[in-house]
Amino acid sequence: MLSHARQTLLQAVDGLSRDELDHLHDATSNTIGALLGHAAAVEHWYQILTFEERKPSASDEAEWSAALNLGEEGRRQIRGRELQSYVDELALAREITLANLAKRDDAWLERPLAAAPEMNAHWAWFHVAEDEISHRGQIRWLRTRLHRNRDVP
Amino acid sequence: MLSHARQTLLQAVDGLSRDELDHLHDATSNTIGALLGHAAAVEHWYQILTFEERKPSASDEAEWSAALNLGEEGRRQIRGRELQSYVDELALAREITLANLAKRDDAWLERPLAAAPEMNAHWAWFHVAEDEISHRGQIRWLRTRLHRNRDVP
Repeated sequence: MLSHARQTLLQAVDGLSRDELDHLHDATSNTIGALLGHAAAVEHWYQILTFEERKPSASDEAEWSAALNLGEEGRRQIRGRELQSYVDELALAREITLANLAKRDDAWLERPLAAAPEMNAHWAWFHVAEDEISHRGQIRWLRTRLHRNRDVP
Repeated sequence: MLSHARQTLLQAVDGLSRDELDHLHDATSNTIGALLGHAAAVEHWYQILTFEERKPSASDEAEWSAALNLGEEGRRQIRGRELQSYVDELALAREITLANLAKRDDAWLERPLAAAPEMNAHWAWFHVAEDEISHRGQIRWLRTRLHRNRDVP
C-alpha cells in the first residue's frame, strides 16, 4: 500500500517544472512542491516514532516544521526546488522505511508504539499512506489547473 | 482502513448544506456532493466485482455512470440532494460491504477475482479506500474555499 501510494504520487507530479511545483493556485493553497516535501516529512516523522521508538525532538520539529505544517511557513520555505530534489528526498526516506520494516516482524507491527501508545506501527504506516493519498488527490486537482488564467501556455 | 476512510470522509462533509454540496468551485470542478455520490458508486462497483463475482453489466454502468465518471455528466445529474441523502446511500453501501466481508475468509481475500483476475479482493478493497481518501483530500480543499468571493457569509 505504501508502494502503490508512492508510485501514484510520483505519477501525479511526473514532468513538472520548478515553476509549476512552486505555483500557488490561490493565496492559501499549498504548492505541489510543498505537498511533496510534506510527504517526505511525514515519512521521517513516523520513522522516528516507529523505528527510533521516540517522540520527535525539538530539533526534529524545527527541521521538519515547514513541511509538516505547510501553510504560510511552507509557502515561504519550500520553493525553488527542481522535481528531482523532491523525488530524491522521497526515495531516500522510502529506502530507510523499507529497510527498517524488513528487519521487523508482524508482532512488532501490531504492538503499541513506545513513544505513542495510542497507536501501533501498523496504524502509523497506514496513516503515512493515507496522508500521501489524500494530498495526491489535491495534487491531481491542482495540476489540472496549473495553466489556467495565465499567459504561459 | 475502510472504516477510518469513511469516518474521515463523513467528518469532512459534516454540516454542509445542499447549496454547499452543489457548489461548483470552477467550471470543471466536481461538487462535494458529486464526490460523495462517487464514493458510494465506487463501493457498489467493487461489490459487484468482488461479492457478486461478475463484471458490472450495461445496466449497472447506466445506473452508476454519472457518479463513477463525474465530470460533465456528474455535474448535470448529481445535485439538489441533502447531505443526509448521500450519508444514507453511503451507510447502506457500507452495510452490504461489511456483511459480505464478514462471510468470507482471508483465502478469499487473496484469491484473484473471477471477474477481474488481474486483481484480488484485497487490492480491490484497498483501492476503494484509496479512492475515497484521495477525494476526501479534494473535499477538504474545496470546503475551505466554499464561501470565498461570494456574498453569502
